[in-house]
Amino acid sequence: MRIHELNFVSGGLPGDGKVGFMEHKITFKISPTESVEITAVTGEKLLDIARKANVAIDAPCSGNGSCGKCRVKLLEGEVESRKTRHITDEEYAEGWRLACESKIADSDIVVEVPDIASAYRSRMKIADLSDTREVEIFNTTKTAIFGTGIETGTALKTVTVQLTEPTLDDAMSDIERLGMELEAQLGESVVPTHFALAKLPQTLREAAFNVTCLCERRNGALILLDVWNAAEAHKICGAAIDIGTTTVAAVLVDLETNEIIAKASSGNGQIRYGADVINRIIEATRPGGIEKLQKAVIEETISPVLLNMCRSAGIPKTNIYRFAVAGNTTMNHLFTGVNPEFIRMEPYVPAFMEINGLFAQDMKLPAHPNAEVIIAPNIGSYVGGDITAGTLASMMWTSEEMALFIDLGTNGELVFGSADFMMSCACSAGPAFEGGDISCGMRATDGAIESCTIDKDTYKPTLGIIGPEGQKPIGLCGSGLIDTVAEMFRCGIINPLGKISIEGERVREDEYGMKSYVVAFADESDTGREIALTETDLDNFIRAKGAIFSAVKTMLESLDFSVDIITKVIIAGGIGSGINIKNAIRIGMLPDIDTEFYSYIGNSSLSGAYAMLISDAARDKVTELARNMTYMELSSNPGYMDEFVAACFLPHTNAALFPSASEE
Amino acid sequence: MRIHELNFVSGGLPGDGKVGFMEHKITFKISPTESVEITAVTGEKLLDIARKANVAIDAPCSGNGSCGKCRVKLLEGEVESRKTRHITDEEYAEGWRLACESKIADSDIVVEVPDIASAYRSRMKIADLSDTREVEIFNTTKTAIFGTGIETGTALKTVTVQLTEPTLDDAMSDIERLGMELEAQLGESVVPTHFALAKLPQTLREAAFNVTCLCERRNGALILLDVWNAAEAHKICGAAIDIGTTTVAAVLVDLETNEIIAKASSGNGQIRYGADVINRIIEATRPGGIEKLQKAVIEETISPVLLNMCRSAGIPKTNIYRFAVAGNTTMNHLFTGVNPEFIRMEPYVPAFMEINGLFAQDMKLPAHPNAEVIIAPNIGSYVGGDITAGTLASMMWTSEEMALFIDLGTNGELVFGSADFMMSCACSAGPAFEGGDISCGMRATDGAIESCTIDKDTYKPTLGIIGPEGQKPIGLCGSGLIDTVAEMFRCGIINPLGKISIEGERVREDEYGMKSYVVAFADESDTGREIALTETDLDNFIRAKGAIFSAVKTMLESLDFSVDIITKVIIAGGIGSGINIKNAIRIGMLPDIDTEFYSYIGNSSLSGAYAMLISDAARDKVTELARNMTYMELSSNPGYMDEFVAACFLPHTNAALFPSASEE
Repeated sequence: MRIHELNFVSGGLPGDGKVGFMEHKITFKISPTESVEITAVTGEKLLDIARKANVAIDAPCSGNGSCGKCRVKLLEGEVESRKTRHITDEEYAEGWRLACESKIADSDIVVEVPDIASAYRSRMKIADLSDTREVEIFNTTKTAIFGTGIETGTALKTVTVQLTEPTLDDAMSDIERLGMELEAQLGESVVPTHFALAKLPQTLREAAFNVTCLCERRNGALILLDVWNAAEAHKICGAAIDIGTTTVAAVLVDLETNEIIAKASSGNGQIRYGADVINRIIEATRPGGIEKLQKAVIEETISPVLLNMCRSAGIPKTNIYRFAVAGNTTMNHLFTGVNPEFIRMEPYVPAFMEINGLFAQDMKLPAHPNAEVIIAPNIGSYVGGDITAGTLASMMWTSEEMALFIDLGTNGELVFGSADFMMSCACSAGPAFEGGDISCGMRATDGAIESCTIDKDTYKPTLGIIGPEGQKPIGLCGSGLIDTVAEMFRCGIINPLGKISIEGERVREDEYGMKSYVVAFADESDTGREIALTETDLDNFIRAKGAIFSAVKTMLESLDFSVDIITKVIIAGGIGSGINIKNAIRIGMLPDIDTEFYSYIGNSSLSGAYAMLISDAARDKVTELARNMTYMELSSNPGYMDEFVAACFLPHTNAALFPSASEE
Repeated sequence: MRIHELNFVSGGLPGDGKVGFMEHKITFKISPTESVEITAVTGEKLLDIARKANVAIDAPCSGNGSCGKCRVKLLEGEVESRKTRHITDEEYAEGWRLACESKIADSDIVVEVPDIASAYRSRMKIADLSDTREVEIFNTTKTAIFGTGIETGTALKTVTVQLTEPTLDDAMSDIERLGMELEAQLGESVVPTHFALAKLPQTLREAAFNVTCLCERRNGALILLDVWNAAEAHKICGAAIDIGTTTVAAVLVDLETNEIIAKASSGNGQIRYGADVINRIIEATRPGGIEKLQKAVIEETISPVLLNMCRSAGIPKTNIYRFAVAGNTTMNHLFTGVNPEFIRMEPYVPAFMEINGLFAQDMKLPAHPNAEVIIAPNIGSYVGGDITAGTLASMMWTSEEMALFIDLGTNGELVFGSADFMMSCACSAGPAFEGGDISCGMRATDGAIESCTIDKDTYKPTLGIIGPEGQKPIGLCGSGLIDTVAEMFRCGIINPLGKISIEGERVREDEYGMKSYVVAFADESDTGREIALTETDLDNFIRAKGAIFSAVKTMLESLDFSVDIITKVIIAGGIGSGINIKNAIRIGMLPDIDTEFYSYIGNSSLSGAYAMLISDAARDKVTELARNMTYMELSSNPGYMDEFVAACFLPHTNAALFPSASEE
């Protein structure tokens, strides 16, 4: 510890004389072998110091003390930290603290930081076609898309040729020999890629001059992508990738049969640079930031996913000849290494909506270097390719019915319309539906409470828990949260503002007067810690559901429609599969229309990307849908804030909007 | 030293019992800090061991003891080595030996190997526009090419646009905003490269939305290569590169003014894998060989040359938007990383003649990743892009005159014809004209004897030496060699077979009966060693000149022409500038026609590449010339060997072909 003296210059600064203050060494242990050191002064918050030191600490509530996620373990020294309900006494004794609640006192400290990337992975439920139900939904979507007259098939085309072998009198070059035969068969000349040319001499001779060629038409020219021995089996593959802010899911597809031959998913390696797109953009604007974030998603996330799929399918990476990628606007920018800075600054301008002419080698993807990388177009700063691809999968463009498509991911995106027109917007619902911002929130994995009913008299909940028989609860996932809040509201445990208005053994009140409702007592839970919803959690949740509904409302208002016009609601995203629609309506999250109108289509971004991968017509359709979709920027819409405030109420300040809830 | 025992299996092997032999450790010191170790057995030749160990030793005569270039210095141990005229007694005492003449005796040894790459560099005279005379010739060639109606100008095109700045009501994406304005100005849409897109958001805002765009038409599409602040100076550059087997020469060109803004040259880093194309091809067929040779020419040779030029011109490497490259067929294959294996095997088939659609990123050239790499087309296994580009520079295609174009590099290539037809062939003249294969041979640098006259009575030569006043001779360069041989023949020192037929103080005879003629005594030379031409040197030289003339003769014969038809001879290559045509005719190397018909055009490969760089019309012209040129494969021509044998005589077995020589 050193006493550091600074001479402040006179003027508007805190002092004009000498000031002495305490400087301490802060050591973050980020893995068993890695540490980051930085100096900080007395009074600085640990979370702020970590951010300055580029150390990733999960803090979805941005450090306001509500989510309890930014736990770190003090190994040496002491911090000034208020007591918080997120840390048990036992944990406190072990050294656990919330980084956002800890200030540097008068010692150097050493803290251990949990690995967020692996924490996210363990918390995640990825819509990655890993279970039968997802595969069924995927197949239904696929059948629907290609049942509309959209044909499968791409510009990739194989031709097998038998060349005459060269002699002294016929010593034309290998590529000329091949090119002449291809021209004879195809009626036009081909432009060889460097890749095809480099392997041509050996291939021709190993194949006794009987080879299969893979060509693709691009900008009017016919490109020769690859050449192989006609006598050998050779799979022509493509990969569809959904790049989510939190997770990446991909499928490897045999482009001749359109069958999925491998699937894989992973947490998005960018997670350590922030949980949401805003934090990622901020990180990207730092020097070297774009390269760092691009590397995190490509080299650390997508490349291993692709290589794993290639390994499991038994194909070399260079057999991947085409990509279809869907991500939100920020993810699309960071994936392509394009500066996303201006997405978050008024007037919210992305660098691109549509982008063509990208190839694997531009982004160092492990694949054929000239594989085209097709990116589902963005339509605005916060409605990206995941939604335009998802809109294809929603099928709402096929009918005159007024439909609403909702993708509930880290952000909430909506598309409203029909075959005649479509309008789209995004709202920052926050991560509540994915387990963030809620003290006992978690992803829909084993131990998650996915459903809940509460006895009106005893206030005792009956829980549905994901996992094997006898699994004890760990926390609440999105659908469980919706159920619990709806049931608490129905039973009068909370009032329309989300404040707890009863007393009893299930209600706690902390020293600050904040109440909570115990969903499971410590001895009932898998962790030995109580699972409880606090008023802060309820507040966060109500804001999230309010964001969704007010977005729907604002968009409909702008068209002079009321929610009654909707006869179809398509829900996508990880949350959707277990959601109790009746409860979601009851709390004022989703429009109060016939629950029969609701359906769930899984990871629509991945389904849409798959369709674009196997079909140029589907690709064109997505582009057409995107071009015809109107984008509404909610953050600059003057009416949205009023709608949002009105929606932060159970079910809504205007109860007439939720007649079925009022009936009860 | 260890006694090593091997059990040979019975059969066709040397023994069927146990054999004991001596194994020794051989250490090659290849630099002050690097060594390569290998074991070898008694009796093995040091040159062979070096090749096995992948240690490069210069041996243009392939180890037959004639060139004296494979000198190594013995630091420890002893070898069995016959005395050779290439090593003086003093040098021998210092440890100098010829690797090809040294066999492992009964000790471990340590030898120092001179760095061939730097040795070649120091010996080299590169036609790289580094002197005024070369620049004059270059300018004359440039004026001639573009005086024929061929226009300068490429498909690269700049457009400056002022965009309206985005607002909340006009939040279209950056690329869409730019694309619409470009489409308005150009009448068609543009396809952005990844490079342009990635820098677009910052550039637009730094430039207050006033930017200059660089576009290029490719396969019918208009590609957006780059975008920059319109208020800032930005050079649009290209690079022309001549890839010689021995040396690489390049110029950096401002594509708006077509001025050369930097020039540089370097020894070809592949030299350590062999002096000629055949050895390079053999090396390329080893595992990893193609990558190794490509790396040697690109990463180790061309990249530093380009980066040096960028530095001296003060431009970033990404301002290089176009390349024009000319090399022989093998160099073109190795540059592009394409297997050259089948070039040297009957029926001598290259992988490509013409190649299009190559970009800087395919070959990891330091430049804009999408810079097109234009490669002058090959026309056969041994007549490549250096000759087709050179043919453009020769101007022989502009007239009805029957012209002969000769490029004298490591190989000799010939083109014969006129505006109506052209025929081409190559002969392996060997490196004699560049100082190889001749014991006292050297490049045309300081100390080289570049001209010589001999007194018929005293046999005393009068020498012209390159270098400052008072420079003493070191060796003979190509033109000096031609003069000396011609004068020795004129004075009767040698007979038509190249055997020395006089006696006197200038004639030596070694213990094997081989005679030599002393051009400079030890005390007259700069090195203190005698400069002498041996009968082996004379033999090598006569074969070289015979190869050239017999190629001319065979080509003309095949068309039923005699040399009298020729009214123009254009000579290119490093040798040409100082050549005494009269002497070259006198020895039967060049056709005996009016010396006024002869001219010299310098590095025609680089001049041609430059023309292709600055002009699409010139590029098309080279392609047209190549397509219309007939290639004659001499190695499979039955008459060539007879012609060659007849030409290995001074001036020729048929003296009637050289009337001017016979007159004397």
